[in-house]
Amino acid sequence: MTSFAFHLDYTDPTSRARLGRFETPHGVVETPIFMPVGTRGTVKGIWPDELREMGAKMILANTYHLALRPGESVVKDLGGLHAFMNWQGPILTDSGGYQVFSLAELRQMDRDRVVFKSHVDGSMFDLTPARAVQIQEDLGADVIMCLDECPPHDAPAEKMQAAVDRTTRWAALCRDAQKRPDQALFGILQGGTDQAMRERSAEGLLPLDFPGYAIGGLSVGEAPADMYSTLDFTVPLLPEHKPRYLMGVGRPIDIIEAVLRGVDMFDCVMPTRNARNATAFTSHGLVKMRNLRYQRDTRPLDANCNCPTCQQFSRGYLRHLFQVEEMLGAQALTVHNLAYYQQVMRDLRAAIKSNSAQEFRLDHLARMTADP
Amino acid sequence: MTSFAFHLDYTDPTSRARLGRFETPHGVVETPIFMPVGTRGTVKGIWPDELREMGAKMILANTYHLALRPGESVVKDLGGLHAFMNWQGPILTDSGGYQVFSLAELRQMDRDRVVFKSHVDGSMFDLTPARAVQIQEDLGADVIMCLDECPPHDAPAEKMQAAVDRTTRWAALCRDAQKRPDQALFGILQGGTDQAMRERSAEGLLPLDFPGYAIGGLSVGEAPADMYSTLDFTVPLLPEHKPRYLMGVGRPIDIIEAVLRGVDMFDCVMPTRNARNATAFTSHGLVKMRNLRYQRDTRPLDANCNCPTCQQFSRGYLRHLFQVEEMLGAQALTVHNLAYYQQVMRDLRAAIKSNSAQEFRLDHLARMTADP
Repeated sequence: MTSFAFHLDYTDPTSRARLGRFETPHGVVETPIFMPVGTRGTVKGIWPDELREMGAKMILANTYHLALRPGESVVKDLGGLHAFMNWQGPILTDSGGYQVFSLAELRQMDRDRVVFKSHVDGSMFDLTPARAVQIQEDLGADVIMCLDECPPHDAPAEKMQAAVDRTTRWAALCRDAQKRPDQALFGILQGGTDQAMRERSAEGLLPLDFPGYAIGGLSVGEAPADMYSTLDFTVPLLPEHKPRYLMGVGRPIDIIEAVLRGVDMFDCVMPTRNARNATAFTSHGLVKMRNLRYQRDTRPLDANCNCPTCQQFSRGYLRHLFQVEEMLGAQALTVHNLAYYQQVMRDLRAAIKSNSAQEFRLDHLARMTADP
Repeated sequence: MTSFAFHLDYTDPTSRARLGRFETPHGVVETPIFMPVGTRGTVKGIWPDELREMGAKMILANTYHLALRPGESVVKDLGGLHAFMNWQGPILTDSGGYQVFSLAELRQMDRDRVVFKSHVDGSMFDLTPARAVQIQEDLGADVIMCLDECPPHDAPAEKMQAAVDRTTRWAALCRDAQKRPDQALFGILQGGTDQAMRERSAEGLLPLDFPGYAIGGLSVGEAPADMYSTLDFTVPLLPEHKPRYLMGVGRPIDIIEAVLRGVDMFDCVMPTRNARNATAFTSHGLVKMRNLRYQRDTRPLDANCNCPTCQQFSRGYLRHLFQVEEMLGAQALTVHNLAYYQQVMRDLRAAIKSNSAQEFRLDHLARMTADP
């Protein structure tokens, strides 16, 4: 297998936060890292060079959506995901499992096979661990994920344990199905917010010796405090010298809290989805861009931000764009929100390096209460 | 008044085509020029620096839309159109007349006043020549337009003549209402496709000595041949040493035909609107991007194009973006279509300079029949 070495460069003596470098066939990324989400092979409203310029190094695409449209064979014929999207950095694809269990309309689950109806046109699809790997091999990302079952956070213990065991069994099948040596296949822990379940999940998956481990089944409706406490007992179950990826998280504060608990990788649609809904993340907290108070406001969205949006446009102009439903509004806020997330990650890495990650967390919380 | 000098640098000996430079407070532009349309203060889907990079030098915004939302006083408070949009080059605003007669739902027309219902929320507005100028002075473009009446191209002679006379009377009222010395107010000829009407319009407007003249009332449903023949007898009515602007035109071939007949300035929503509808203008003709034939096509949209879209994306990827309704599809085709228009204008100016404008026209027509 191609080297996917994970170098652990530094660990914060005051927390579990750590600095690392993760080597992939498309470059080395510094961790902790936030990966913008390009669901259907495009981070909505953004050009690849805009992502590069804001410092994004690695992005995520969704197997479920791409398998439905245009189909993985089309992506493969167009040169694989990197050529398809014109993104030369590392890419991670999820397994499609989460979407099958949350988006698809109808489904039937056998022991090692799930049948579902496409949310797009109702056509029937089925997914097995081997098929999830084959699709991801055709798509060609650097990091691919095992097919997992993600139950509701409040699922009864019996169902939770069945999901953990199924996820472990599927992980072994995924590992056996993997053919490409140039992709890192990550295992995914399940088990909700229950310590015994997470231990059971780790016990099943660690012997499979994946090059990285993800924590699934969080940020699915549980309270933030429950997520943090789950990380408190789950992260220590994972190998120290392999990357740890918290799937689908989250708000900047959630990422900071998770980094302090030892997580290295993140993805979330929040910065991009909120941008399209006229909500900006700023160094002063959330800004609802449609608010009348910004109508004649000549100030930039965030005076502390160097992104193209904050360098070029006033709050009044941004508000206007949303009021008249012009595309540039969503584009501009997407650029800003993603740039803000990248800035948070850069600042957080610097804080870890200077042993001030805890202070960084407190400062972030304090600034979120300020009036923008 | 600030200098809006128009320098006529060269006239093609084989046609009426000419090369000029038009001085404005926000820079000098070379003519013939095509102005991308930023209806509501944004060229849809495009950042200002993308416009600059493709060579766009002057853009248009619509008075009617901006007066309705956000209102000209908001634009003024946000620093005027240039600051509002972050566009430092010249801007032209239309008078709003065309939209009042085509978009607004109800209207009542007095001698020198038109009352209409906003197409956005049904609220009542009224427009007079003086008010059209005041709005445009608040918006702050470099070139502003007289309020005109644009009748249907097949209006009966009586109605056409009334519109010509009203447009002449309103032009005088606009000129009298103008306060800002740093904006060039252009007159607009009406008269449909009738030579006597166009002569009547020119006779009324030329004594008012505007710094530039527009030809309105074309590209409103008449056949292209009728537009060209109208230009044959209308353009010679206009002053030689002032810029001539053909409003709302058009396809690349229409622009080329009009340049050969002596027109200097153009605007049209066609490149941007068609882009959003998945239709590309290329050096080989129109490309319908959703066509299945492009599904696995790894070639760039237009091999002869240097735009970011053609440098970065395959036809197969562009097709995918439209099939799944991703914003980047519209963004990418908008960049390409506008870049293509700018390239046509650059090539056309070079052809005039080398006395080969007629050959350029024939070559353009020949290439449009090729298979993309």
